[in-house]
Amino acid sequence: MFEYHLIAVDPETGARAGEFVTPHGVIPTPVFMPVGTQATVKSMSPDELRTIDAKIILSNTYHLFLRPGPDLIAKAGGLHGFMNWDRPILTDSGGFQVFSLAKINKIMDDGVEFRSHLDGTKYMMTPELATEVQEKLGSDIAMCFDQCVELPCTRQQAEDAVERTLRWAARCKAAHTRDDQAQFGIVQGGLFDDLRASCADALAEMDFPGYAIGGLSVGESHAEMYRCMEALMPHMPAEKPRYLMGVGHPANLIEGIARGIDMFDCVLPTRIGRNGTALTSKGRIIVRDAKYAHDFTPIDPECGCLACRKHTKAYIRHLLKAGEMYGLRLVTIHNLYYLTHLMEDIRKAIAADRFPEFREEFYEKLGGNRC
Amino acid sequence: MFEYHLIAVDPETGARAGEFVTPHGVIPTPVFMPVGTQATVKSMSPDELRTIDAKIILSNTYHLFLRPGPDLIAKAGGLHGFMNWDRPILTDSGGFQVFSLAKINKIMDDGVEFRSHLDGTKYMMTPELATEVQEKLGSDIAMCFDQCVELPCTRQQAEDAVERTLRWAARCKAAHTRDDQAQFGIVQGGLFDDLRASCADALAEMDFPGYAIGGLSVGESHAEMYRCMEALMPHMPAEKPRYLMGVGHPANLIEGIARGIDMFDCVLPTRIGRNGTALTSKGRIIVRDAKYAHDFTPIDPECGCLACRKHTKAYIRHLLKAGEMYGLRLVTIHNLYYLTHLMEDIRKAIAADRFPEFREEFYEKLGGNRC
Repeated sequence: MFEYHLIAVDPETGARAGEFVTPHGVIPTPVFMPVGTQATVKSMSPDELRTIDAKIILSNTYHLFLRPGPDLIAKAGGLHGFMNWDRPILTDSGGFQVFSLAKINKIMDDGVEFRSHLDGTKYMMTPELATEVQEKLGSDIAMCFDQCVELPCTRQQAEDAVERTLRWAARCKAAHTRDDQAQFGIVQGGLFDDLRASCADALAEMDFPGYAIGGLSVGESHAEMYRCMEALMPHMPAEKPRYLMGVGHPANLIEGIARGIDMFDCVLPTRIGRNGTALTSKGRIIVRDAKYAHDFTPIDPECGCLACRKHTKAYIRHLLKAGEMYGLRLVTIHNLYYLTHLMEDIRKAIAADRFPEFREEFYEKLGGNRC
Repeated sequence: MFEYHLIAVDPETGARAGEFVTPHGVIPTPVFMPVGTQATVKSMSPDELRTIDAKIILSNTYHLFLRPGPDLIAKAGGLHGFMNWDRPILTDSGGFQVFSLAKINKIMDDGVEFRSHLDGTKYMMTPELATEVQEKLGSDIAMCFDQCVELPCTRQQAEDAVERTLRWAARCKAAHTRDDQAQFGIVQGGLFDDLRASCADALAEMDFPGYAIGGLSVGESHAEMYRCMEALMPHMPAEKPRYLMGVGHPANLIEGIARGIDMFDCVLPTRIGRNGTALTSKGRIIVRDAKYAHDFTPIDPECGCLACRKHTKAYIRHLLKAGEMYGLRLVTIHNLYYLTHLMEDIRKAIAADRFPEFREEFYEKLGGNRC
């Protein structure tokens, strides 16, 4: 269980094709994980997630801890039973949300005291509780409870967060009891390369079955993010899956993979989908735009998703303008299909030893726009 | 085309099983038509409508006239092409909406001047325009443009509305050119039995392929509605389909069928579904209710819909409480499935000569609550 098999590596960039074995199936990597914050990927059914070929989804400990509560979900047979999804699930630890969502929070050595964004109730989240909650949720992959600092931050702030993240990672590991759940460590360190490196080295010492990079894609430039990843990568164990948290721009996915990343998650495809923006191989399309009012072609003629097989831009635009749910369902389906199939195409390109060519073609179609 | 075949009649009540032939297929009757006001049944895909076995859907001339406009829909191949639905469609004429939605309206002999509820633009809807718009929409069944009076109303108001409705029906018939579209007349007359009767007689003279009862289920008691229908029914041609507009309460459907009605439409199942209220054979269930928080059984264990086959009340309640779209999608699917299959069961009962028994059993399960 929880073996990572490397299948192919691009000799030029280090991009990897692999697979990660979990109790609910094998995850081919690189993989994009749709975000199902509240035990549902917004607007999507589990059947639709299977249809767009989602290999794994992500759900949120912070949200599910507050509502409906981990005990209820445990009674339902864990998240898999509760939402009737039989493929792998990764849960984040709530570390990011207690800082970003729960505006009133107080960091202590033991954990984080915060007030619920729903009703103001005061809670204390600790590494042990985050681990226990995720065990009740029964995800295939659980994340360590970490401290994510906002960027920009001082060196001292980043150093403190790394130290706390490492202490908490050790406590998460000690609290973890389920053999059928993999626990990943999270690398912090802001944009300080040496802090990132020492954090990764220390986590590698603890021997987790996988490692994530947290605290990126939080406002820094793409150039800074890429530089930070490049400096960090030699410290991320090659025999374990590497997960870049919160990244979903197509170009960022390609560049992450080119730097050795295997797993990604982001609300981007679902969030911009609900606003009527579609991701395509030629760039973004604002389907609400008036120029599509009489456009009776699909969002992307080359796409095989439900929206592109069955409906026109004119119809989807009408639904979006009229505030009809089916419109945002369709763009959400399209965006997730686009990203899961982009990952599949990249995986094939790596296996066929043509990732650099694929990357060039990707940017050519986009018209050279790297972001 | 547009033949109505009577298959069975319950000798005790007059309840009918039949079928109505249209260019997009045969509609078995009695039938409930889900409402797709803006060229979409709220939250549902056309595939899902097929899965719940919707035989025909309804769409709204008033809304589609304003947005996206009949010419755009005509260019898309009519409503069927625009929304990618290949089963029959009925369009109402906009008669009801220009009075109920467009608050500022002025009735003239030629038609109704009204301001759009979307942006205040002034329009003039006439019998000829309502007919032309519906021909552009390409529905299988179009409705005559009628005047629906609010209840309670004076005899003079009802009389004026009947006269105008009859004059407009003649103009609609004269303006109608499409052989592949059936045009139904609408009976008005408030709660005045003699006005209803004379309106129906006059429409029967004009020889429409079907007849609707408008202006009921607008605030009167169920007893008044039933009495009005009973008095009217001898004047509704038996060799044509009879459509009771805007009725969707399960008990009202049974009672309408018991009085000889073949077709119904209503926003009720989709509207209450979005609020988390489910229709079942044992009555309504408020799925949001706290008592279902730990209920890991389906909404209705006997139901074969997606929601009942795949999900528990506890999960659906969580989705509804969390404001997640998939929750209201599931209750909508369940409610429409319940009504389409209730119609199917009633049809079988009529054909098997056991409609009165079915009706009794229906109320027994409900616990005797006729409404």
